[in-house]
Amino acid sequence: MTPALATPSAATATDLGGQMHELIADLLPICRSITGDGVRETLRRLQELVPLVTHEVPSGTQVLDWTVPNEWNIRDAWVKNAQGERVVDFRRSNLHVVNYSTPVRRTVSLPELLSHCFSLPDHPDWIPYRTSYYSETWGFCLTQRQLESLTPGDYEVCIDATLAPGALTYGELVLPGETTDEILVSTHVCHPSMCNDNLSGVAVATHLARYLQRERRRFTYRFLFIPGTIGSITWLARNEAVVPRIKHGIVLASVGDAGHVHYKRSRRGNAEIDRAVAHVLGRLGKPFELMEFTPYGYDERQYCSPGYDLAVGCLSRTPYARYPEYHTSADDLDFVRPEALADSYATLLAVFDVLEGNATYRNLNPKGEPQLGRRGLYGPVGGGTGERVDELALLWVLNQSDGRHSLLDVAERSGRPFAAIRRAADRLLASGLLAPASTAPES
Amino acid sequence: MTPALATPSAATATDLGGQMHELIADLLPICRSITGDGVRETLRRLQELVPLVTHEVPSGTQVLDWTVPNEWNIRDAWVKNAQGERVVDFRRSNLHVVNYSTPVRRTVSLPELLSHCFSLPDHPDWIPYRTSYYSETWGFCLTQRQLESLTPGDYEVCIDATLAPGALTYGELVLPGETTDEILVSTHVCHPSMCNDNLSGVAVATHLARYLQRERRRFTYRFLFIPGTIGSITWLARNEAVVPRIKHGIVLASVGDAGHVHYKRSRRGNAEIDRAVAHVLGRLGKPFELMEFTPYGYDERQYCSPGYDLAVGCLSRTPYARYPEYHTSADDLDFVRPEALADSYATLLAVFDVLEGNATYRNLNPKGEPQLGRRGLYGPVGGGTGERVDELALLWVLNQSDGRHSLLDVAERSGRPFAAIRRAADRLLASGLLAPASTAPES
Amino acid sequence: MTPALATPSAATATDLGGQMHELIADLLPICRSITGDGVRETLRRLQELVPLVTHEVPSGTQVLDWTVPNEWNIRDAWVKNAQGERVVDFRRSNLHVVNYSTPVRRTVSLPELLSHCFSLPDHPDWIPYRTSYYSETWGFCLTQRQLESLTPGDYEVCIDATLAPGALTYGELVLPGETTDEILVSTHVCHPSMCNDNLSGVAVATHLARYLQRERRRFTYRFLFIPGTIGSITWLARNEAVVPRIKHGIVLASVGDAGHVHYKRSRRGNAEIDRAVAHVLGRLGKPFELMEFTPYGYDERQYCSPGYDLAVGCLSRTPYARYPEYHTSADDLDFVRPEALADSYATLLAVFDVLEGNATYRNLNPKGEPQLGRRGLYGPVGGGTGERVDELALLWVLNQSDGRHSLLDVAERSGRPFAAIRRAADRLLASGLLAPASTAPES
Repeated sequence: MTPALATPSAATATDLGGQMHELIADLLPICRSITGDGVRETLRRLQELVPLVTHEVPSGTQVLDWTVPNEWNIRDAWVKNAQGERVVDFRRSNLHVVNYSTPVRRTVSLPELLSHCFSLPDHPDWIPYRTSYYSETWGFCLTQRQLESLTPGDYEVCIDATLAPGALTYGELVLPGETTDEILVSTHVCHPSMCNDNLSGVAVATHLARYLQRERRRFTYRFLFIPGTIGSITWLARNEAVVPRIKHGIVLASVGDAGHVHYKRSRRGNAEIDRAVAHVLGRLGKPFELMEFTPYGYDERQYCSPGYDLAVGCLSRTPYARYPEYHTSADDLDFVRPEALADSYATLLAVFDVLEGNATYRNLNPKGEPQLGRRGLYGPVGGGTGERVDELALLWVLNQSDGRHSLLDVAERSGRPFAAIRRAADRLLASGLLAPASTAPES
Repeated sequence: MTPALATPSAATATDLGGQMHELIADLLPICRSITGDGVRETLRRLQELVPLVTHEVPSGTQVLDWTVPNEWNIRDAWVKNAQGERVVDFRRSNLHVVNYSTPVRRTVSLPELLSHCFSLPDHPDWIPYRTSYYSETWGFCLTQRQLESLTPGDYEVCIDATLAPGALTYGELVLPGETTDEILVSTHVCHPSMCNDNLSGVAVATHLARYLQRERRRFTYRFLFIPGTIGSITWLARNEAVVPRIKHGIVLASVGDAGHVHYKRSRRGNAEIDRAVAHVLGRLGKPFELMEFTPYGYDERQYCSPGYDLAVGCLSRTPYARYPEYHTSADDLDFVRPEALADSYATLLAVFDVLEGNATYRNLNPKGEPQLGRRGLYGPVGGGTGERVDELALLWVLNQSDGRHSLLDVAERSGRPFAAIRRAADRLLASGLLAPASTAPES
Repeated sequence: MTPALATPSAATATDLGGQMHELIADLLPICRSITGDGVRETLRRLQELVPLVTHEVPSGTQVLDWTVPNEWNIRDAWVKNAQGERVVDFRRSNLHVVNYSTPVRRTVSLPELLSHCFSLPDHPDWIPYRTSYYSETWGFCLTQRQLESLTPGDYEVCIDATLAPGALTYGELVLPGETTDEILVSTHVCHPSMCNDNLSGVAVATHLARYLQRERRRFTYRFLFIPGTIGSITWLARNEAVVPRIKHGIVLASVGDAGHVHYKRSRRGNAEIDRAVAHVLGRLGKPFELMEFTPYGYDERQYCSPGYDLAVGCLSRTPYARYPEYHTSADDLDFVRPEALADSYATLLAVFDVLEGNATYRNLNPKGEPQLGRRGLYGPVGGGTGERVDELALLWVLNQSDGRHSLLDVAERSGRPFAAIRRAADRLLASGLLAPASTAPES
């Protein structure tokens, strides 16, 4: 029998939703970026929950076609008016500074200041999130109301930051399984004070790891907490030997909002992970959407580049840029919901359960049906106690187990839930009617 | 030219429908089961119509994963009340006894009697049909009205049956064709006094055999009249050498009711038989339904087990368990209709005609079109007598006959009836423009 | 970079539409047939526009399954009434004579005359077009009004024609490209005074050739101006060595009427030409129709015969026999429109542009995304002048360029216009990120 992962009970789910939301609240104030102490502090706190390992990759390291950039750290930043008042203040929100801004301290006129400012006219109370990783400049992000209140005159601008050789930091947690085949869970950890994008992904991944480390696992699970793009590129560059072991993978991003689940398929389009997610979502009785692969998005862009072509999809609730709060200060603690976090968690666990159980078997009595009755697998009418035998599931597994159809294939063809098919397979295994196929599944 | 089977004329069809209905009426009173004299008597009467051979397989014979059970025969059965009146009487309907009941004769209280009784509360005047082949017990089937009229008190129950070593009996009729490739027609003959399930299948199969034995046949036809499940398992166990010769097959069950035709595809899903049936049904202008394979149903379960995976589908009118009369005394002579029997017969003949004619050819003049005009295959405008040449069908056959497309492929791609495509192929063969392809069809 | 063909500007299109309409007007009076001086004169006039070569194939030459027929030429024809008046006069319309009529001069009664006459009762003012190439007879085509005005009495009929050994004439223009792979454009030139069928095809093909001869071409273009059926058969018979070089082809017929474009797929059904046309038509924002292959139609019948199976489709506006003017004198200069001719021309050019540019590449940096920013391929926000970089198109080309997907594959999967995908590929080539794949495209 293959390992089985339990769906959390309603009480457990509520509890977990609350814990994930608390973790987000704890991590929210930290000013993260693609490098620097914000990521280090974030990973340090996660280490209180799971035994992840941190890696430091020096600035200047060549990683695939890229170079690890200088490390950015920031202590303070502000814009002061002629009266010396902080009209923009990093201490109130780290989104006020364009992430990766170069250090600056000087007096500028209002027009020059405005040329370095970003705001959202349509959402006058929200601060936008902007970055400038690979082009050296500085800037401030303001609410539209702040911007409009600026009067002509000189302003003192200060960004007390450093952009200097250091390292890129990422976290990695490997939970060895019964096999070296891996399931990759990757989430970006580079965004400053925003909740859905992507402390939600960080929180769900962390709690999945907490659960999985206690369970029997066929697969080895690898969790990556990495800065977007440069982080996955760095990891791929350093782990060429690991890549072929990754059989399934999923990127988590924006998994805490109230919207329904969206899954973006891998580049392969119909990989086992794609089919497992589609099967699970199709059975939950809740709205969901399957999206075709595109080469734009999160780190699946790198995992699905043609030189790797890994079976990695991306799970979100409302996908990026489809909600107005995306990349603004309105992506806050109210925007992520404990029940949504718990639902994302439970969905992923159900997907992993399918992957764990999706073996391919051979019917050891392939000619005609075996006589199930004398093996106690065909319930006498009205009789029997204990677990009800799902006869049709037994017949489907027997009929399709020719070594070329996985249990997920059987579930799809029969239209029955994977769990029922798997339970039938387990009973047939126990009865000696089934054996693992030596050959790999057909699809 | 390949053999062609004629569609019966309206008069012939009416005549045939009547004959099949009479055969059902003749066989109806016999108490059949999966073994015993009821099957023997049934087959004996069929032998008056077709030269089928009967086989007797001793009880205890190992057949695949199963064992041929003891033979069951019954003389009489009843429940008598305190006044000695038969309140349940086998002589009125053999459905009153749970088929394969063990012998019993004793006095029981009403509560004990009721624990051995089956009725249909929703259909108070119908007797249900119940069996207990592989678990030794006894029981009676009553109408709900009978059941409700039983008053407290003692009852004498008697089932004067024997369950003892004997044999399993089945009938087999082989009509050798020009080739040893076979078409299998299988129908279950184990049900007692019910008409649609499955004297309808028995009657249609018998009359198909009567017709086919007089016709030119490319295929060898094998008709099996067998008890359900154990019969096909027994036949398969004894005929390993025959199995590879079965190219197409069909199970007949419930083919006499007024509903429209349902065809359940073989496990392969798109076997030639599946496509032939779909083509025929799609052209008849009547409602029909194609159903996907499931491993539940009739003997196709055994033929389509993964160790055989034969191209065997199942033809019914209203499928089992979709009509309330199913497995009750209401499945009677009124429930089956001569015209429905004749329609099932004609549909099957049309399917066999497609299979007989579905050859794959090679255009002997594959470069450019051959000049049809000088061969009399392209009618001068307004001229000519006799059969109108279907020029488009000729062009389709010429165009697609590259040795990789069967005539059924051509019919499907062109959207033209198989008969028109086949007639065109016959004309082209006669003109020397076509030759049988040495290679097998692509699909 | 692969060659690119410019879409004509609106002004150029108007101009071209006018020129093509004028060419049709110039060629309209000539009495063409499948052989004879009409075709020669037509080709001579085309030679004033493009350097096509004419071929003369002697009568009696065996071509595939056919024989080149005797040459037909006609000087005059008429039906005179008892008063010596020409009641039917070839000089008024060459449609009045059944094309390929045998010479005749004699006096006939009205009934005998009528047995040689064709008219269109539903369109009393139109002259039908009839031929009798392969069955020796003579006849006249009249308007219904002419026919009804014939009074009893004797008539003198005269067809002053010759049907004698000569030659079959066709035109061929080869525009060598950078490779010997060919695109075939075939159009029938055998119809007498009708415009849409098929002087429209002749005019569009001629002007496409005029344009293409001045452009850089990856493909060699071969234009055939041939009599229908016997012409393509003759060409195929004489060019066995050329046939394998034809990678894509299209037959032009009825491309000048006001209807929307119809494209009939090649026998292969999803050849590159089929997909290129579907892609182009799907992007024009105008109605169009894609039709499945049938073995009836124009010379694609011969090119798509199974011994060749060339990737040749057929482009029409309203397909033959779907407009009442088809094969009548009403297929005149008003029936073809300059703007429709120009639209057909532009559509074909866009298709050729897709074919010219549809290369398959290999991403030279296949592991992870290359850093586009430092190559100037990822525009800084709000900055830059000149061509806007289509980042998503770049990412799609990089992601899919694994040597197995052509740019047309990428365009189809991404849902973006081919031109955008190709422009992205050109930029990536220029940046050294892409190289031509040595292997052929997958599909």
